[in-house]
Amino acid sequence: MLFSQVSAVAEHEGGVFEACIDPSWSIAGRPNGGYLLAILGRAAGAVVPQPHVLTASAVYLRPPGFGAATVRTEVLRAGRSASQVRATMVQDGKSCVEALFTVGTVGRDVVPFWDRATPLPAIAGREECVRAPRVNPTGVPVPINGEVDLRLDPAVLGFARGNPSGAGELRGWLALPGDEPFDPVALLYAVDALPPGTFEIATSGWVPTLELTCYVRGLPAPGPVRVLQRARLVAEDRFDELCTVWDSAGRLVAQATQLAGVRFG
Amino acid sequence: MLFSQVSAVAEHEGGVFEACIDPSWSIAGRPNGGYLLAILGRAAGAVVPQPHVLTASAVYLRPPGFGAATVRTEVLRAGRSASQVRATMVQDGKSCVEALFTVGTVGRDVVPFWDRATPLPAIAGREECVRAPRVNPTGVPVPINGEVDLRLDPAVLGFARGNPSGAGELRGWLALPGDEPFDPVALLYAVDALPPGTFEIATSGWVPTLELTCYVRGLPAPGPVRVLQRARLVAEDRFDELCTVWDSAGRLVAQATQLAGVRFG
Repeated sequence: MLFSQVSAVAEHEGGVFEACIDPSWSIAGRPNGGYLLAILGRAAGAVVPQPHVLTASAVYLRPPGFGAATVRTEVLRAGRSASQVRATMVQDGKSCVEALFTVGTVGRDVVPFWDRATPLPAIAGREECVRAPRVNPTGVPVPINGEVDLRLDPAVLGFARGNPSGAGELRGWLALPGDEPFDPVALLYAVDALPPGTFEIATSGWVPTLELTCYVRGLPAPGPVRVLQRARLVAEDRFDELCTVWDSAGRLVAQATQLAGVRFG
Repeated sequence: MLFSQVSAVAEHEGGVFEACIDPSWSIAGRPNGGYLLAILGRAAGAVVPQPHVLTASAVYLRPPGFGAATVRTEVLRAGRSASQVRATMVQDGKSCVEALFTVGTVGRDVVPFWDRATPLPAIAGREECVRAPRVNPTGVPVPINGEVDLRLDPAVLGFARGNPSGAGELRGWLALPGDEPFDPVALLYAVDALPPGTFEIATSGWVPTLELTCYVRGLPAPGPVRVLQRARLVAEDRFDELCTVWDSAGRLVAQATQLAGVRFG
Protein backbone atom coordinates (compact mmCIF):
# COMPACT_ATOMS: atom_id res chain seq x y z
CA MET A 1 0.00 0.00 0.00
CA LEU A 2 1.09 3.55 -0.66
CA PHE A 3 2.36 5.61 2.24
CA SER A 4 -0.41 8.14 1.67
CA GLN A 5 -2.88 5.28 2.21
CA VAL A 6 -1.36 3.72 5.33
CA SER A 7 -0.95 7.16 6.90
CA ALA A 8 -4.43 8.41 5.93
CA VAL A 9 -6.95 9.70 8.44
CA ALA A 10 -10.70 10.16 8.11
CA GLU A 11 -12.52 12.82 10.13
CA HIS A 12 -15.57 11.38 11.82
CA GLU A 13 -16.47 14.38 13.92
CA GLY A 14 -15.00 17.84 14.32
CA GLY A 15 -11.27 17.45 14.84
CA VAL A 16 -11.45 13.72 15.67
CA PHE A 17 -10.06 11.28 13.12
CA GLU A 18 -9.93 7.55 12.58
CA ALA A 19 -6.68 5.95 11.43
CA CYS A 20 -5.61 2.38 10.80
CA ILE A 21 -2.14 1.36 11.95
CA ASP A 22 -0.85 -1.00 9.30
CA PRO A 23 0.89 -4.08 10.74
CA SER A 24 3.38 -4.05 7.87
CA TRP A 25 4.84 -0.70 8.97
CA SER A 26 6.51 -2.25 11.99
CA ILE A 27 9.73 -3.57 13.50
CA ALA A 28 9.62 -6.52 15.90
CA GLY A 29 5.88 -6.19 16.36
CA ARG A 30 5.88 -2.44 17.08
CA PRO A 31 4.78 0.26 14.65
CA ASN A 32 7.55 2.57 13.46
CA GLY A 33 7.55 5.81 15.46
CA GLY A 34 7.98 8.09 12.45
CA TYR A 35 5.04 6.37 10.77
CA LEU A 36 2.87 7.10 13.83
CA LEU A 37 4.02 10.73 13.81
CA ALA A 38 3.06 10.96 10.14
CA ILE A 39 -0.48 9.80 10.94
CA LEU A 40 -0.72 12.56 13.54
CA GLY A 41 0.70 14.99 10.98
CA ARG A 42 -2.04 14.13 8.48
CA ALA A 43 -4.67 14.98 11.08
CA ALA A 44 -2.90 18.18 12.16
CA GLY A 45 -2.69 19.35 8.56
CA ALA A 46 -6.38 18.70 8.02
CA VAL A 47 -7.68 21.11 10.66
CA VAL A 48 -5.91 24.33 9.61
CA PRO A 49 -5.72 26.21 6.29
CA GLN A 50 -1.93 26.10 5.77
CA PRO A 51 -0.66 23.33 3.50
CA HIS A 52 2.55 21.97 5.08
CA VAL A 53 3.72 20.59 8.38
CA LEU A 54 6.70 22.74 9.32
CA THR A 55 7.59 21.45 12.80
CA ALA A 56 6.58 18.32 14.69
CA SER A 57 7.54 17.38 18.25
CA ALA A 58 6.38 14.10 19.72
CA VAL A 59 6.53 12.17 22.95
CA TYR A 60 6.00 8.42 22.79
CA LEU A 61 3.89 7.14 25.66
CA ARG A 62 3.15 3.51 24.80
CA PRO A 63 3.25 1.57 21.51
CA PRO A 64 -0.24 1.27 20.01
CA GLY A 65 -1.42 -2.06 18.65
CA PHE A 66 -2.20 -2.57 14.98
CA GLY A 67 -5.56 -1.63 13.53
CA ALA A 68 -7.96 1.15 14.41
CA ALA A 69 -6.80 4.17 16.38
CA THR A 70 -8.31 7.58 17.05
CA VAL A 71 -6.50 10.87 16.53
CA ARG A 72 -7.79 13.83 18.52
CA THR A 73 -6.66 17.26 17.39
CA GLU A 74 -6.84 20.67 18.97
CA VAL A 75 -6.03 23.86 17.10
CA LEU A 76 -3.89 25.81 19.56
CA ARG A 77 -3.65 28.90 17.37
CA ALA A 78 -4.99 29.59 13.90
CA GLY A 79 -2.74 32.23 12.35
CA ARG A 80 -2.41 33.84 8.95
CA SER A 81 0.95 32.43 7.91
CA ALA A 82 1.24 29.56 10.38
CA SER A 83 -0.96 27.66 12.81
CA GLN A 84 -0.22 25.33 15.72
CA VAL A 85 -2.00 22.08 16.41
CA ARG A 86 -1.80 19.40 19.07
CA ALA A 87 -2.61 15.83 17.99
CA THR A 88 -2.94 12.75 20.19
CA MET A 89 -3.20 9.12 19.11
CA VAL A 90 -5.59 7.25 21.38
CA GLN A 91 -6.36 3.54 21.47
CA ASP A 92 -8.53 1.73 24.02
CA GLY A 93 -8.94 5.02 25.85
CA LYS A 94 -5.18 5.44 26.36
CA SER A 95 -2.93 8.05 24.78
CA CYS A 96 -0.11 6.42 22.82
CA VAL A 97 1.66 9.31 21.06
CA GLU A 98 1.16 13.05 21.43
CA ALA A 99 2.70 15.72 19.26
CA LEU A 100 2.73 19.47 18.74
CA PHE A 101 2.78 20.77 15.17
CA THR A 102 3.42 24.04 13.41
CA VAL A 103 1.68 24.08 10.04
CA GLY A 104 2.75 26.67 7.47
CA THR A 105 4.03 26.95 3.95
CA VAL A 106 7.29 25.42 2.78
CA GLY A 107 8.83 26.26 -0.59
CA ARG A 108 10.15 24.10 -3.39
CA ASP A 109 13.69 24.49 -4.76
CA VAL A 110 14.59 26.66 -1.79
CA VAL A 111 17.94 28.42 -2.08
CA PRO A 112 19.33 28.97 1.42
CA PHE A 113 20.22 32.48 2.50
CA TRP A 114 23.01 31.06 4.66
CA ASP A 115 23.98 27.44 5.22
CA ARG A 116 26.08 25.80 7.91
CA ALA A 117 23.80 22.80 8.21
CA THR A 118 25.17 19.27 8.01
CA PRO A 119 26.60 18.94 4.48
CA LEU A 120 25.39 16.09 2.28
CA PRO A 121 27.89 13.33 3.06
CA ALA A 122 29.45 10.99 0.55
CA ILE A 123 26.83 8.24 0.29
CA ALA A 124 27.44 5.29 -2.04
CA GLY A 125 25.29 5.28 -5.18
CA ARG A 126 21.85 3.81 -4.71
CA GLU A 127 22.75 0.74 -6.76
CA GLU A 128 25.80 0.05 -4.60
CA CYS A 129 23.80 0.30 -1.36
CA VAL A 130 22.40 -2.78 0.35
CA ARG A 131 18.67 -3.15 0.77
CA ALA A 132 17.61 -3.54 4.40
CA PRO A 133 16.18 -7.05 4.84
CA ARG A 134 12.79 -8.11 6.17
CA VAL A 135 14.47 -10.14 8.88
CA ASN A 136 17.46 -8.59 10.57
CA PRO A 137 20.72 -10.47 11.22
CA THR A 138 19.61 -11.45 14.73
CA GLY A 139 16.33 -12.92 13.46
CA VAL A 140 14.09 -9.97 14.35
CA PRO A 141 11.27 -9.48 11.81
CA VAL A 142 11.27 -6.06 10.13
CA PRO A 143 8.14 -6.08 7.94
CA ILE A 144 8.50 -2.39 7.13
CA ASN A 145 11.51 -3.25 4.96
CA GLY A 146 9.14 -5.13 2.68
CA GLU A 147 7.18 -1.90 2.20
CA VAL A 148 9.78 0.82 1.80
CA ASP A 149 12.98 0.56 -0.20
CA LEU A 150 15.70 1.39 2.32
CA ARG A 151 19.26 0.88 1.12
CA LEU A 152 22.18 1.40 3.44
CA ASP A 153 25.67 2.44 2.45
CA PRO A 154 27.90 -0.69 2.58
CA ALA A 155 30.40 1.34 4.62
CA VAL A 156 27.97 1.47 7.58
CA LEU A 157 26.98 -2.18 7.63
CA GLY A 158 29.47 -3.38 10.21
CA PHE A 159 26.58 -3.91 12.62
CA ALA A 160 24.98 -6.41 10.21
CA ARG A 161 28.15 -8.54 10.50
CA GLY A 162 28.30 -8.16 14.28
CA ASN A 163 31.19 -5.74 13.90
CA PRO A 164 30.05 -2.12 14.36
CA SER A 165 32.50 0.45 13.02
CA GLY A 166 32.25 2.66 16.11
CA ALA A 167 31.34 5.68 14.01
CA GLY A 168 27.76 5.90 15.34
CA GLU A 169 26.43 6.86 11.94
CA LEU A 170 24.12 5.29 9.36
CA ARG A 171 23.32 6.66 5.92
CA GLY A 172 21.46 5.48 2.87
CA TRP A 173 18.66 5.94 0.38
CA LEU A 174 14.96 5.73 1.13
CA ALA A 175 12.05 5.36 -1.30
CA LEU A 176 8.37 5.00 -0.49
CA PRO A 177 6.18 2.19 -1.90
CA GLY A 178 5.50 2.75 -5.59
CA ASP A 179 8.10 5.53 -5.58
CA GLU A 180 5.43 7.89 -4.23
CA PRO A 181 6.96 11.38 -3.88
CA PHE A 182 7.77 12.52 -0.35
CA ASP A 183 5.57 15.30 1.01
CA PRO A 184 6.28 17.10 4.32
CA VAL A 185 4.31 14.48 6.29
CA ALA A 186 6.28 11.65 4.67
CA LEU A 187 9.45 13.39 5.86
CA LEU A 188 8.22 12.85 9.43
CA TYR A 189 8.57 9.15 8.67
CA ALA A 190 11.89 9.57 6.84
CA VAL A 191 13.61 11.05 9.91
CA ASP A 192 12.87 7.85 11.86
CA ALA A 193 13.26 5.34 9.00
CA LEU A 194 16.86 4.26 9.48
CA PRO A 195 18.07 2.08 12.33
CA PRO A 196 19.54 4.19 15.15
CA GLY A 197 23.08 5.44 14.72
CA THR A 198 23.98 3.48 17.85
CA PHE A 199 23.82 0.27 15.78
CA GLU A 200 27.26 1.31 14.55
CA ILE A 201 28.50 1.68 18.13
CA ALA A 202 27.47 -1.57 19.82
CA THR A 203 24.76 -4.21 19.74
CA SER A 204 21.59 -3.27 21.59
CA GLY A 205 18.00 -4.35 21.94
CA TRP A 206 14.92 -2.23 21.26
CA VAL A 207 15.69 1.48 21.14
CA PRO A 208 12.56 3.31 22.37
CA THR A 209 12.24 6.91 21.23
CA LEU A 210 11.43 9.27 24.09
CA GLU A 211 11.15 12.48 22.07
CA LEU A 212 11.39 13.22 18.35
CA THR A 213 11.43 16.69 16.80
CA CYS A 214 11.46 17.34 13.06
CA TYR A 215 11.79 20.58 11.09
CA VAL A 216 10.67 20.48 7.46
CA ARG A 217 12.91 22.86 5.48
CA GLY A 218 11.79 22.34 1.89
CA LEU A 219 9.39 20.43 -0.36
CA PRO A 220 11.26 17.40 -1.68
CA ALA A 221 11.77 16.92 -5.40
CA PRO A 222 10.28 13.60 -6.58
CA GLY A 223 12.46 10.53 -6.13
CA PRO A 224 14.28 8.81 -3.28
CA VAL A 225 15.73 10.81 -0.42
CA ARG A 226 19.12 10.43 1.23
CA VAL A 227 19.17 10.14 5.00
CA LEU A 228 21.98 10.57 7.52
CA GLN A 229 21.41 9.36 11.08
CA ARG A 230 24.21 10.45 13.41
CA ALA A 231 24.44 9.63 17.14
CA ARG A 232 25.86 12.33 19.39
CA LEU A 233 25.99 11.63 23.13
CA VAL A 234 25.36 8.22 24.70
CA ALA A 235 25.10 8.36 28.48
CA GLU A 236 22.91 6.91 31.24
CA ASP A 237 21.22 4.41 28.87
CA ARG A 238 20.05 7.28 26.65
CA PHE A 239 21.36 8.86 23.48
CA ASP A 240 20.44 11.67 21.15
CA GLU A 241 20.90 11.67 17.43
CA LEU A 242 20.61 14.13 14.57
CA CYS A 243 18.93 13.13 11.35
CA THR A 244 19.23 15.06 8.10
CA VAL A 245 17.32 14.33 4.89
CA TRP A 246 18.18 15.52 1.37
CA ASP A 247 15.95 15.19 -1.67
CA SER A 248 16.94 13.70 -5.04
CA ALA A 249 18.31 17.10 -6.10
CA GLY A 250 20.61 17.15 -3.06
CA ARG A 251 18.68 19.86 -1.20
CA LEU A 252 18.28 19.64 2.56
CA VAL A 253 14.55 19.07 3.21
CA ALA A 254 14.34 17.93 6.85
CA GLN A 255 16.33 18.07 10.07
CA ALA A 256 15.42 16.12 13.16
CA THR A 257 16.67 15.25 16.59
CA GLN A 258 15.58 12.49 18.91
CA LEU A 259 16.34 11.28 22.40
CA ALA A 260 15.99 7.53 22.84
CA GLY A 261 16.70 4.85 25.38
CA VAL A 262 19.35 2.23 24.72
CA ARG A 263 20.86 -0.72 26.56
CA PHE A 264 23.89 -2.30 24.99
CA GLY A 265 24.76 -5.98 25.05
CA MET B 1 14.94 37.93 42.41
CA LEU B 2 16.29 34.41 42.21
CA PHE B 3 15.46 32.35 39.13
CA SER B 4 13.75 29.75 41.34
CA GLN B 5 11.45 32.57 42.54
CA VAL B 6 10.57 34.14 39.18
CA SER B 7 9.95 30.69 37.67
CA ALA B 8 7.96 29.37 40.64
CA VAL B 9 4.43 28.01 40.33
CA ALA B 10 1.77 27.46 43.00
CA GLU B 11 -0.87 24.75 42.61
CA HIS B 12 -4.33 26.13 43.27
CA GLU B 13 -6.29 23.08 42.21
CA GLY B 14 -5.34 19.65 40.95
CA GLY B 15 -2.84 20.13 38.13
CA VAL B 16 -3.58 23.84 37.66
CA PHE B 17 -0.93 26.32 38.75
CA GLU B 18 -0.56 30.06 39.11
CA ALA B 19 2.62 31.73 37.91
CA CYS B 20 3.79 35.33 37.72
CA ILE B 21 5.68 36.42 34.63
CA ASP B 22 8.31 38.83 35.85
CA PRO B 23 8.64 41.94 33.66
CA SER B 24 12.41 41.99 34.25
CA TRP B 25 12.88 38.66 32.44
CA SER B 26 12.21 40.21 29.07
CA ILE B 27 13.66 41.60 25.85
CA ALA B 28 11.98 44.54 24.10
CA GLY B 29 8.81 44.10 26.16
CA ARG B 30 8.44 40.37 25.57
CA PRO B 31 9.22 37.65 28.12
CA ASN B 32 12.17 35.42 27.22
CA GLY B 33 10.94 32.15 25.68
CA GLY B 34 13.24 29.91 27.68
CA TYR B 35 12.04 31.58 30.87
CA LEU B 36 8.43 30.78 29.93
CA LEU B 37 9.40 27.18 29.17
CA ALA B 38 11.04 26.95 32.59
CA ILE B 39 7.79 28.03 34.26
CA LEU B 40 5.98 25.24 32.41
CA GLY B 41 8.78 22.86 33.43
CA ARG B 42 8.27 23.69 37.13
CA ALA B 43 4.61 22.76 36.82
CA ALA B 44 5.34 19.58 34.82
CA GLY B 45 7.83 18.45 37.42
CA ALA B 46 5.34 19.02 40.24
CA VAL B 47 2.70 16.56 39.02
CA VAL B 48 4.81 13.39 38.66
CA PRO B 49 7.12 11.55 41.08
CA GLN B 50 10.36 11.74 39.03
CA PRO B 51 12.74 14.54 39.99
CA HIS B 52 14.15 15.98 36.72
CA VAL B 53 12.88 17.36 33.44
CA LEU B 54 14.61 15.26 30.80
CA THR B 55 13.03 16.55 27.56
CA ALA B 56 10.96 19.64 26.79
CA SER B 57 9.39 20.57 23.44
CA ALA B 58 7.47 23.81 23.10
CA VAL B 59 5.48 25.71 20.55
CA TYR B 60 5.10 29.46 21.06
CA LEU B 61 1.61 30.67 20.23
CA ARG B 62 1.51 34.29 21.39
CA PRO B 63 3.66 36.25 23.85
CA PRO B 64 1.95 36.49 27.24
CA GLY B 65 1.84 39.79 29.06
CA PHE B 66 3.61 40.32 32.38
CA GLY B 67 1.97 39.33 35.63
CA ALA B 68 -0.37 36.48 36.48
CA ALA B 69 -0.68 33.47 34.20
CA THR B 70 -2.18 30.03 34.65
CA VAL B 71 -0.40 26.78 33.84
CA ARG B 72 -2.60 23.78 33.13
CA THR B 73 -0.95 20.38 33.25
CA GLU B 74 -2.02 16.96 32.13
CA VAL B 75 -0.11 13.81 33.01
CA LEU B 76 0.00 11.87 29.74
CA ARG B 77 1.65 8.80 31.23
CA ALA B 78 2.87 8.12 34.75
CA GLY B 79 5.67 5.56 34.46
CA ARG B 80 8.12 3.97 36.85
CA SER B 81 11.33 5.46 35.49
CA ALA B 82 9.90 8.33 33.42
CA SER B 83 6.61 10.17 33.02
CA GLN B 84 5.26 12.46 30.32
CA VAL B 85 3.37 15.68 30.97
CA ARG B 86 1.75 18.35 28.82
CA ALA B 87 1.75 21.90 30.19
CA THR B 88 0.03 24.95 28.75
CA MET B 89 0.44 28.57 29.77
CA VAL B 90 -2.90 30.38 29.60
CA GLN B 91 -3.62 34.07 30.03
CA ASP B 92 -6.96 35.83 29.52
CA GLY B 93 -8.38 32.52 28.32
CA LYS B 94 -5.82 32.17 25.54
CA SER B 95 -3.03 29.61 25.27
CA CYS B 96 0.36 31.32 24.97
CA VAL B 97 2.90 28.48 25.15
CA GLU B 98 2.35 24.73 25.17
CA ALA B 99 5.00 22.10 25.81
CA LEU B 100 5.43 18.36 26.16
CA PHE B 101 7.80 17.09 28.84
CA THR B 102 9.50 13.87 29.75
CA VAL B 103 10.34 13.82 33.46
CA GLY B 104 12.86 11.27 34.69
CA THR B 105 16.12 11.05 36.59
CA VAL B 106 19.32 12.66 35.39
CA GLY B 107 22.68 11.87 36.98
CA ARG B 108 25.43 14.10 38.30
CA ASP B 109 29.03 13.80 37.07
CA VAL B 110 27.87 11.61 34.19
CA VAL B 111 30.67 9.94 32.26
CA PRO B 112 29.49 9.39 28.66
CA PHE B 113 29.56 5.88 27.24
CA TRP B 114 30.28 7.37 23.80
CA ASP B 115 30.58 11.00 22.77
CA ARG B 116 30.41 12.65 19.37
CA ALA B 117 28.41 15.60 20.65
CA THR B 118 29.51 19.16 19.95
CA PRO B 119 32.86 19.55 21.73
CA LEU B 120 33.29 22.38 24.22
CA PRO B 121 34.66 25.19 22.05
CA ALA B 122 37.40 27.58 23.00
CA ILE B 123 35.51 30.28 24.89
CA ALA B 124 37.39 33.25 26.30
CA GLY B 125 37.75 33.24 30.07
CA ARG B 126 34.79 34.65 31.95
CA GLU B 127 36.74 37.74 32.97
CA GLU B 128 37.67 38.48 29.35
CA CYS B 129 34.06 38.16 28.16
CA VAL B 130 31.83 41.20 27.78
CA ARG B 131 28.69 41.50 29.86
CA ALA B 132 25.53 41.82 27.76
CA PRO B 133 24.09 45.30 28.37
CA ARG B 134 20.60 46.26 29.55
CA VAL B 135 20.12 48.32 26.40
CA ASN B 136 21.36 46.82 23.18
CA PRO B 137 23.38 48.77 20.59
CA THR B 138 20.25 49.70 18.61
CA GLY B 139 18.52 51.10 21.71
CA VAL B 140 16.31 48.09 22.44
CA PRO B 141 15.81 47.55 26.20
CA VAL B 142 16.95 44.13 27.46
CA PRO B 143 15.97 44.13 31.15
CA ILE B 144 16.84 40.43 31.52
CA ASN B 145 20.51 41.39 31.24
CA GLY B 146 20.11 43.24 34.53
CA GLU B 147 18.99 39.97 36.14
CA VAL B 148 21.31 37.31 34.74
CA ASP B 149 25.03 37.66 34.22
CA LEU B 150 25.51 36.87 30.52
CA ARG B 151 29.01 37.47 29.18
CA LEU B 152 29.77 36.99 25.50
CA ASP B 153 33.10 36.05 24.01
CA PRO B 154 34.65 39.22 22.51
CA ALA B 155 35.31 37.23 19.31
CA VAL B 156 31.55 37.01 18.60
CA LEU B 157 30.67 40.64 19.26
CA GLY B 158 30.89 41.88 15.67
CA PHE B 159 27.13 42.33 15.70
CA ALA B 160 27.38 44.80 18.58
CA ARG B 161 29.58 47.01 16.37
CA GLY B 162 27.29 46.60 13.35
CA ASN B 163 29.80 44.25 11.76
CA PRO B 164 28.70 40.59 12.11
CA SER B 165 31.50 38.10 11.54
CA GLY B 166 29.37 35.86 9.32
CA ALA B 167 30.09 32.83 11.50
CA GLY B 168 26.50 32.52 12.77
CA GLU B 169 27.70 31.57 16.22
CA LEU B 170 27.54 33.10 19.69
CA ARG B 171 29.16 31.76 22.84
CA GLY B 172 29.66 32.88 26.37
CA TRP B 173 29.14 32.41 30.08
CA LEU B 174 25.82 32.54 31.89
CA ALA B 175 25.15 32.84 35.62
CA LEU B 176 21.79 33.12 37.37
CA PRO B 177 20.97 35.89 39.87
CA GLY B 178 22.81 35.35 43.14
CA ASP B 179 24.87 32.62 41.44
CA GLU B 180 22.02 30.20 42.11
CA PRO B 181 23.03 26.74 40.84
CA PHE B 182 21.41 25.60 37.59
CA ASP B 183 18.92 22.75 37.94
CA PRO B 184 17.38 20.95 34.93
CA VAL B 185 14.54 23.50 34.71
CA ALA B 186 17.02 26.38 34.71
CA LEU B 187 18.73 24.71 31.74
CA LEU B 188 15.48 25.20 29.80
CA TYR B 189 16.15 28.90 30.19
CA ALA B 190 19.88 28.58 29.44
CA VAL B 191 19.27 27.10 25.98
CA ASP B 192 17.37 30.27 25.00
CA ALA B 193 19.44 32.80 26.95
CA LEU B 194 21.88 33.96 24.28
CA PRO B 195 20.92 36.15 21.32
CA PRO B 196 20.28 34.06 18.20
CA GLY B 197 23.31 32.89 16.24
CA THR B 198 21.92 34.85 13.29
CA PHE B 199 23.06 38.07 15.02
CA GLU B 200 26.51 37.13 13.74
CA ILE B 201 25.16 36.76 10.18
CA ALA B 202 23.23 39.96 9.58
CA THR B 203 21.14 42.55 11.40
CA SER B 204 17.54 41.51 12.00
CA GLY B 205 14.54 42.51 14.03
CA TRP B 206 12.68 40.34 16.51
CA VAL B 207 13.41 36.63 16.10
CA PRO B 208 10.27 34.73 17.19
CA THR B 209 10.83 31.12 18.24
CA LEU B 210 8.43 28.71 16.54
CA GLU B 211 9.59 25.51 18.23
CA LEU B 212 12.17 24.82 20.93
CA THR B 213 13.28 21.35 22.07
CA CYS B 214 15.73 20.73 24.91
CA TYR B 215 17.33 17.53 26.19
CA VAL B 216 18.80 17.64 29.68
CA ARG B 217 21.82 15.33 29.74
CA GLY B 218 23.27 15.86 33.19
CA LEU B 219 22.84 17.72 36.48
CA PRO B 220 25.05 20.79 36.34
CA ALA B 221 27.81 21.32 38.85
CA PRO B 222 27.36 24.62 40.75
CA GLY B 223 28.66 27.72 39.02
CA PRO B 224 28.20 29.47 35.69
CA VAL B 225 27.51 27.46 32.54
CA ARG B 226 29.05 27.92 29.11
CA VAL B 227 26.65 28.18 26.19
CA LEU B 228 27.20 27.79 22.45
CA GLN B 229 24.44 28.96 20.09
CA ARG B 230 25.12 27.93 16.49
CA ALA B 231 22.88 28.70 13.50
CA ARG B 232 22.58 26.02 10.84
CA LEU B 233 20.26 26.69 7.89
CA VAL B 234 18.69 30.08 7.12
CA ALA B 235 16.05 29.90 4.39
CA GLU B 236 12.58 31.30 3.70
CA ASP B 237 12.75 33.76 6.63
CA ARG B 238 13.34 30.88 9.06
CA PHE B 239 16.41 29.34 10.63
CA ASP B 240 17.27 26.55 12.97
CA GLU B 241 20.01 26.58 15.53
CA LEU B 242 21.68 24.16 17.89
CA CYS B 243 22.45 25.13 21.44
CA THR B 244 24.82 23.24 23.73
CA VAL B 245 25.40 23.95 27.42
CA TRP B 246 28.35 22.81 29.56
CA ASP B 247 28.59 23.11 33.33
CA SER B 248 31.47 24.65 35.28
CA ALA B 249 33.27 21.28 35.18
CA GLY B 250 33.08 21.27 31.37
CA ARG B 251 30.48 18.50 31.17
CA LEU B 252 27.74 18.70 28.54
CA VAL B 253 24.47 19.16 30.45
CA ALA B 254 21.93 20.26 27.81
CA GLN B 255 21.41 20.15 24.06
CA ALA B 256 18.66 22.03 22.28
CA THR B 257 17.40 22.93 18.86
CA GLN B 258 15.02 25.64 17.81
CA LEU B 259 13.33 26.84 14.66
CA ALA B 260 12.68 30.57 14.58
CA GLY B 261 11.53 33.23 12.19
CA VAL B 262 13.95 35.93 11.03
CA ARG B 263 13.87 38.92 8.68
CA PHE B 264 17.14 40.59 7.93
CA GLY B 265 17.67 44.26 7.30
